[in-house]
Amino acid sequence: MRLVIVGGVAAGTKAASRARRVDPEVEITVYQEEPEPSISECGLPYHLSGVVAGREELVARTPEKFAEKGIEVRVRHRVERIDPTAKKLSVRNLSKGHSFEDTYDRLVIATGAQAVFPPLPGVDLDGVFKLRFLTDSDAVRGHIREHSPREAAVVGGGYIGLEVAENLCRLGMEVSLIEGEDRVALAYGPEVAQRVEDHLKENGVRVYTGAEVEAFTGEERVRGVRFGDEELEVDLVVVGVGIKPRVELAEEAGVELGPSGAIRVDRHMRTNLPDVWAAGDCVESLNLVSGEPAWVPLGDTANQMGRVAGTNAAMGEDALEFPGILGTGIFKVFDLGVGKTGLSEKEAEDAGFETVGAAIETTDRASYYPGVEKVFLKLIANRATGRLLGAEAAGSGADKLTDVCATAIWSKLSYPDLVNLDLAYAPPYGPALSPVVQAATVLSGEFERPRRGVRASE
Amino acid sequence: MRLVIVGGVAAGTKAASRARRVDPEVEITVYQEEPEPSISECGLPYHLSGVVAGREELVARTPEKFAEKGIEVRVRHRVERIDPTAKKLSVRNLSKGHSFEDTYDRLVIATGAQAVFPPLPGVDLDGVFKLRFLTDSDAVRGHIREHSPREAAVVGGGYIGLEVAENLCRLGMEVSLIEGEDRVALAYGPEVAQRVEDHLKENGVRVYTGAEVEAFTGEERVRGVRFGDEELEVDLVVVGVGIKPRVELAEEAGVELGPSGAIRVDRHMRTNLPDVWAAGDCVESLNLVSGEPAWVPLGDTANQMGRVAGTNAAMGEDALEFPGILGTGIFKVFDLGVGKTGLSEKEAEDAGFETVGAAIETTDRASYYPGVEKVFLKLIANRATGRLLGAEAAGSGADKLTDVCATAIWSKLSYPDLVNLDLAYAPPYGPALSPVVQAATVLSGEFERPRRGVRASE
Repeated sequence: MRLVIVGGVAAGTKAASRARRVDPEVEITVYQEEPEPSISECGLPYHLSGVVAGREELVARTPEKFAEKGIEVRVRHRVERIDPTAKKLSVRNLSKGHSFEDTYDRLVIATGAQAVFPPLPGVDLDGVFKLRFLTDSDAVRGHIREHSPREAAVVGGGYIGLEVAENLCRLGMEVSLIEGEDRVALAYGPEVAQRVEDHLKENGVRVYTGAEVEAFTGEERVRGVRFGDEELEVDLVVVGVGIKPRVELAEEAGVELGPSGAIRVDRHMRTNLPDVWAAGDCVESLNLVSGEPAWVPLGDTANQMGRVAGTNAAMGEDALEFPGILGTGIFKVFDLGVGKTGLSEKEAEDAGFETVGAAIETTDRASYYPGVEKVFLKLIANRATGRLLGAEAAGSGADKLTDVCATAIWSKLSYPDLVNLDLAYAPPYGPALSPVVQAATVLSGEFERPRRGVRASE
Repeated sequence: MRLVIVGGVAAGTKAASRARRVDPEVEITVYQEEPEPSISECGLPYHLSGVVAGREELVARTPEKFAEKGIEVRVRHRVERIDPTAKKLSVRNLSKGHSFEDTYDRLVIATGAQAVFPPLPGVDLDGVFKLRFLTDSDAVRGHIREHSPREAAVVGGGYIGLEVAENLCRLGMEVSLIEGEDRVALAYGPEVAQRVEDHLKENGVRVYTGAEVEAFTGEERVRGVRFGDEELEVDLVVVGVGIKPRVELAEEAGVELGPSGAIRVDRHMRTNLPDVWAAGDCVESLNLVSGEPAWVPLGDTANQMGRVAGTNAAMGEDALEFPGILGTGIFKVFDLGVGKTGLSEKEAEDAGFETVGAAIETTDRASYYPGVEKVFLKLIANRATGRLLGAEAAGSGADKLTDVCATAIWSKLSYPDLVNLDLAYAPPYGPALSPVVQAATVLSGEFERPRRGVRASE
């Protein structure tokens, strides 16, 4: 049995490893366009600044290591066509230029996502970059070495833009962050967005919101970025305005896409085509809170999907399930951790829920314990049922609070559970009542309206 | 309506505050034996060493602050007798020595727990202390100031003993930890216990396990501690061998106790006596994993119970519920965080479960991210159902992993949920797959035995 996997980052390599584990005899080939497989793409912003020193640190496993497990990883190879009837593939060797045919019994599509590069005037100037692959961070680093840029613009105030802004600051550059919408971190509510913006400014980043970039200016090399009435002088631009699923190959082969434009799969990661599974950033998931299809491309989810797709493809049966996602995410910008799970207030309302929210600011440990820092937590619940729909955290320990709330949302818990939840307390690790319990208690006040003025006589 | 609360630490003061919130008109009096109410007892070990500098930092709220909310807190008052038929109390003013009678319409018993002081020869010597109240830490600090002890013995290797050992080390003392059982941190499995013991030794603490103390020696002041064939020379001893619920007052009044010896309450924190509720360390809970009554006295749980008891007592109805506990706990010893939730392997087997375990050692962030540290996680599941019964974590981020697992156990999740759980990932906050997901994946291997050697021909 021959299993071919198209794409060798998180989902593809996880699928390959799992397939090998469940079936020692299956032939496994992974085709990968980029020169390295198994890259930690989430580490790229940190590679820019040298926080992560060596590019090899971002390569979880080399083709040689895969070969030891009997997995053939062919880098610099692009699968150009899938013939699902004949179970054939056209593959181009990008190093040597020639094409050849391959066959499969079962196929996993893990083609990932690519950066959206807006078609603006000047976008092709030297010094204007995106950051999606290790080759991109190599290019940015090369440019920095050669030209020692001093003024950088980061276009886009999402995860990638924020992380890149921090890392360019670390290199001593003056950094401007330019966001077209009215706030950064748009997936979050306004309270968190404001905290992020304040923190950026405290760290010397100039923040422009509601600022639609119109052009990059310069001759050959970028010299400026223009938006509204402003033109900033810059000598480096990193564009992080979003990514989109890479689905052309799949679509041409007849693989069905979902409403998000990513590949539609069932709970077993099967596509509509026989013997073809898909996983990772090219795939659409079910949002378990809204019940709607959603495209949330993230590395951890890609790994989890790859495990399911690889197992099921190797076994040829529906052995494992991937039920869906919550949209959990986190990022760090300078010293501020910011996490989210489930739906924001706006997303919940767009999904048709009437919501009740509770927001608190408390501490990450006992108020008297050294090093105490602040943390913000907002819970969003369904007014009709009391069930938790979403949570956002910002500050010290935001990762813990996000993960606790993610587990609670996964489990469909409601506020009375959260009020009594038995979480771990000791002075170095939290206030006597967890921020989750505190926020749930505030939330409960929105649902429970105890009678007032109970008399002794009753 | 007159509400009297006996005990003014975590549960008692929380009950008082909640009662005031739900009923602005109820008369509230709290009687408290110790000179300060609303003490953070969990902070006492840190007060010893001055990590928490001022004793006032451990007093969450003074009697004057309570008075502003219309709550009368009478410190240095001991309730000596409850007459539940006449709804009367005998109260002794410990400052002035006289007794008086009070009445109540509703009563909350929150008498807490007290340190067990073993009746060993020499236990009354100067220099032998327990650590339960702020008055105890005052006494230890006074002894240290006066006598500058250099060799300390800590008797008992549980939470308190471990925290005290660390804090005496901070003061520059040579510290010996003496534990009667064959390992420290007995509530945990052997893997975690070993890590704790190793970490103690790395930090210069001498650890004696299986060492039953026979006597403290010296004249007037302690000069030694004797166990087995050893006699250590010491000039300070802190005994932390356990605590027991303070239930004499309640028992004499006819309040029913549970099998643990603590007060039995229903889900609404009612005792068997009419108009008498109880909360906090004097109360027994339902362990939601084993389904058995359990006594797990902890500050956060006391607060949660106090909220329920105070609300229900003020309203005179069963408005809120406290469903039970998981036995979640955490402590820090030097740089090692150690947390637990649910049942240990032994506790699970004692409760009649056949268990399956999975233990991993992984990292607290992406392996390439600066500052990466190790963390150990063990999951314990029910072989019959796959449901998570317990978890233990040790190392960096143990608090997060403990809380995620606590939420999962509360929600009755099984390993397939944990494998796919959508937790937050970014390189500074975890490896690409959360340790919880990683450990659950190992666990799944114990349940799922995929067919091997699937052929292409099938």
